[in-house]
Amino acid sequence: MIYLDNAATTQVRQEVLDAMIEYMRENYANPSSIYQNASCVKVAMDVAREKIARAINADHSNEIFFTGSGTEAINWAIKSIAYELFENRKHIITTAIEHHAVLHTCKYLETVGYDVTYLPVDEYGMVTAQQVANAIRPDTIMVAVMMANNEVGTIMPVAEIGQAIKKINETRNREDRIYFFIDAIQAVGHIPVDVNELGVDLLAISGHKIYAAKGVGALYVRRGVKLMPFIHGGGQERGRRGGTENVAGIVGMGVAIELAIKEMQAENEKQTALRDYLITQILEKIPYSKLNGHPTKRLPSNVNIIFDYIEGEGILLMLDFNGICASSGSACTSGSLDPSHVLLAMGLPHERAHGSLRLSIGKDTTKEDLDKVIDVLPKIIERLRQISPLWEEKEGAI
Amino acid sequence: MIYLDNAATTQVRQEVLDAMIEYMRENYANPSSIYQNASCVKVAMDVAREKIARAINADHSNEIFFTGSGTEAINWAIKSIAYELFENRKHIITTAIEHHAVLHTCKYLETVGYDVTYLPVDEYGMVTAQQVANAIRPDTIMVAVMMANNEVGTIMPVAEIGQAIKKINETRNREDRIYFFIDAIQAVGHIPVDVNELGVDLLAISGHKIYAAKGVGALYVRRGVKLMPFIHGGGQERGRRGGTENVAGIVGMGVAIELAIKEMQAENEKQTALRDYLITQILEKIPYSKLNGHPTKRLPSNVNIIFDYIEGEGILLMLDFNGICASSGSACTSGSLDPSHVLLAMGLPHERAHGSLRLSIGKDTTKEDLDKVIDVLPKIIERLRQISPLWEEKEGAI
Repeated sequence: MIYLDNAATTQVRQEVLDAMIEYMRENYANPSSIYQNASCVKVAMDVAREKIARAINADHSNEIFFTGSGTEAINWAIKSIAYELFENRKHIITTAIEHHAVLHTCKYLETVGYDVTYLPVDEYGMVTAQQVANAIRPDTIMVAVMMANNEVGTIMPVAEIGQAIKKINETRNREDRIYFFIDAIQAVGHIPVDVNELGVDLLAISGHKIYAAKGVGALYVRRGVKLMPFIHGGGQERGRRGGTENVAGIVGMGVAIELAIKEMQAENEKQTALRDYLITQILEKIPYSKLNGHPTKRLPSNVNIIFDYIEGEGILLMLDFNGICASSGSACTSGSLDPSHVLLAMGLPHERAHGSLRLSIGKDTTKEDLDKVIDVLPKIIERLRQISPLWEEKEGAI
Repeated sequence: MIYLDNAATTQVRQEVLDAMIEYMRENYANPSSIYQNASCVKVAMDVAREKIARAINADHSNEIFFTGSGTEAINWAIKSIAYELFENRKHIITTAIEHHAVLHTCKYLETVGYDVTYLPVDEYGMVTAQQVANAIRPDTIMVAVMMANNEVGTIMPVAEIGQAIKKINETRNREDRIYFFIDAIQAVGHIPVDVNELGVDLLAISGHKIYAAKGVGALYVRRGVKLMPFIHGGGQERGRRGGTENVAGIVGMGVAIELAIKEMQAENEKQTALRDYLITQILEKIPYSKLNGHPTKRLPSNVNIIFDYIEGEGILLMLDFNGICASSGSACTSGSLDPSHVLLAMGLPHERAHGSLRLSIGKDTTKEDLDKVIDVLPKIIERLRQISPLWEEKEGAI
C-alpha cells in the first residue's frame, strides 16, 4: 500500500504508541485523583503541555488547553469568543476556503444572530492582510484564518494579517479589541509556527496530522484572553474544559510534536523535493492537468492537481485498485457529491472542480512510492478520459 | 499498588489495547476517505456502534453517536435540546446530586436565560418519580437524571421517572414533549441498561469507566429526536458531530462494552460480595463510621463511608502511603476544597461531609486487596483522630 493521504490523517508512529501504552496499562490513573500515581499522570500531561507550548513558541505552557480534536478546539475558540461578546458586537471575518470546522461553526452562528464575512480568495487560494483590514467594522469580534489550507496546501499570510489586526487594535480600547484565531491544524509540526510572530490570540492544533492518535487536539489561548468553557463539567484544564482528559492521547501528542519539530527542517527539505518531483512529472506526463494552490507558498507535503474532463472519484478508485491511497480534497467531505468549496472559491468552474486529486506526502513517503504513481496515473487518466462524455465532447470539438 | 478508584477511571484492558493498536498502526486511515482501507476502518467503527447499541438494547446502531468523552455527550444532549426549544420553553429539571458535567452545564444555561429546578434528594441520594412529575411545568423541556451516582453509588429509579414523563407526554402534542436524558456513565457496562425499558430519549456513555481508553464516549439519541450538532465541522457521525473520529478509542470501547456485558452477571455477583464484605468489616472495625448512599440500591462496585471527626484528604494520603489508591468522592473535583455536593444534598452537615472515603471495586479487585484495606484503615482513622481537633473536642465533651 502506498499511502499518500497524510493530510487526511497519519499513522501513529511507534514512539508515540509506546508512550501511549504506558499511560493506558501502567499509569492509567485519573489525573484529577490525588494519590501519587495520579500525580505522575498529571505531570506527564504537563510535560506534553510544555512540549506543545515550546513547539509554537508560547510564553507559558498554561496557555495550552487539551481538547478531543482540532475541530473541538475550533468550535471552542470561535463560539466562546462570539458568545462572550455577543451583547455588543456580532461580526466575524473569515475566508471562503476555511475547513468546514470553521465554516460550519460560522454558518451556525449566522443562524443565531451573528454576521459573518467570508473573504474571497485569489486563484491560489490566498487572502491578503489588506482584505482583512478592509473588512473590519466597529462591531468585528474576531478574525479566523487558517495558516495552511488542507486541500490545496496554500500557506496564508497570517503574520501580516496579525500585524494588520494589531494596528487596528492599537486604536481601540482593550474591551473592544478584535481577537485573531488561526486554524493551524495543517501547519503545526509541518512548518514553523510562532504564536508571537503571528500575533495570534487563539490557535487550534490537532494530533492525528502529526503521527499522534486521532481524538486529541489542543487550543492555544494567549494569556489574558478570557475564554469561557465550551464543554462544561469537572475542574479539568483549570476549569476551562470538563471531561476526563485523554491522557494517553495527550502524552502521545507531546511526543509527536517534539519529534516533528526536531525533524522539521530535514523533512521539509525532503518532502519539498519529493513534492516538486511529483508535480513536475505529473504535469509533464498528463495533458490538461494543472496544479491547484500556490506554486511556492505551499505545504511541503501537498500536491493537488486538476485533470480536466474527468471526475476525481474515478481517479481515486483506480488509484486504490493500484494500492495507492489518495483523496480528491478534504477527507471530511469526501462522502459528499459537492465539488470542493476551496476550488470553487479559487475560481474554478463546477465541472473542473470535480476533477481534483490531492496526494499528500508523509515522513515515510519514498521516491519509489511516487514513481509508482507517476507510472500508473497517466494510464488511469487516459482510460478515464476515454470513457468520459466531457472528453468525447471536447475531442469532437477539435 | 491496590487500585480502588475504578469509579474515577479504569485500566485499559489488554483485549481493548490490542484492538486499539491495530487501528493506530495498521488500519490508521481516516474513516471518511474513500479507498478500501478507509472503508475497513469505517466498518470497524460501525461494528463498535452496533456493539454499543446492543449493550443498551437500542433499536438501531445509528442511534449511537461517538463523542470525545461522557462529558461531551452530556453537554451535547442538554445544550442542543435546550437551544432547539428555547423560543418557547426554558425549564429544565435535574437533581442536586448529578455529576458536575450536568450541573455546570445547567448553571451555564441559567446564565443565558434558562430556568433549572434542582430536585432535592433523600438521605440515600434518591429522588422519586413523583418528585419529578410534581416539578414538571408547561414550559419544561427536559428532565436530566443520572442512573447511578458516581460518588455514593445510589441507583436512581430512572425507569419509574421515564414512566412518569411518558404519562405526561401522552397529554401533550409531540412538539411540546419533554425529553428525558440519563447520564448512565457509571451504569453502562456495570448494571443492566435498557433504553426502551427506561423510556429514555438521550443517554450518555463513557469508555474509560469500563476498561476502555480515556477520550471516548457516546450519546444514544432515540430515533426521531432531532438533535443539532454541538461540535460543528465535517460530515462525520452523519453530519451530527464534526471532527475526525477517535477510531482506536471507538473500536476499543466496542470491545470493552461487549466484554462488560458478557461478564456483567458474574462480575456483579463477585463485586457485590466484595463490596458488602468491605462495608461490613469497616463499619464493624471503625467506630463513628457510616455508609453513604443506599444500602441495597447501589452499584456493586461502590463503597462510600464517612468517618466522623476527620477529613477525607488525610485518609487518602495515608492510604496512598500504604499503596492504596482511593478517593474522597468524585475525581473530577478532588482538587477543590469544597465538601462533596452530593453528601451535602443528602443532608450531611459541612464538617461531616469532609470525612468521606470512596473505595470503588473493579474487575481485578481481590479479597486480599480488601483485607489490606481492612487491616490498615482502622489504624489510619485512629491516628488521624488522635491529631484531629474535632475528635479532641468530642472526647473532651465525653
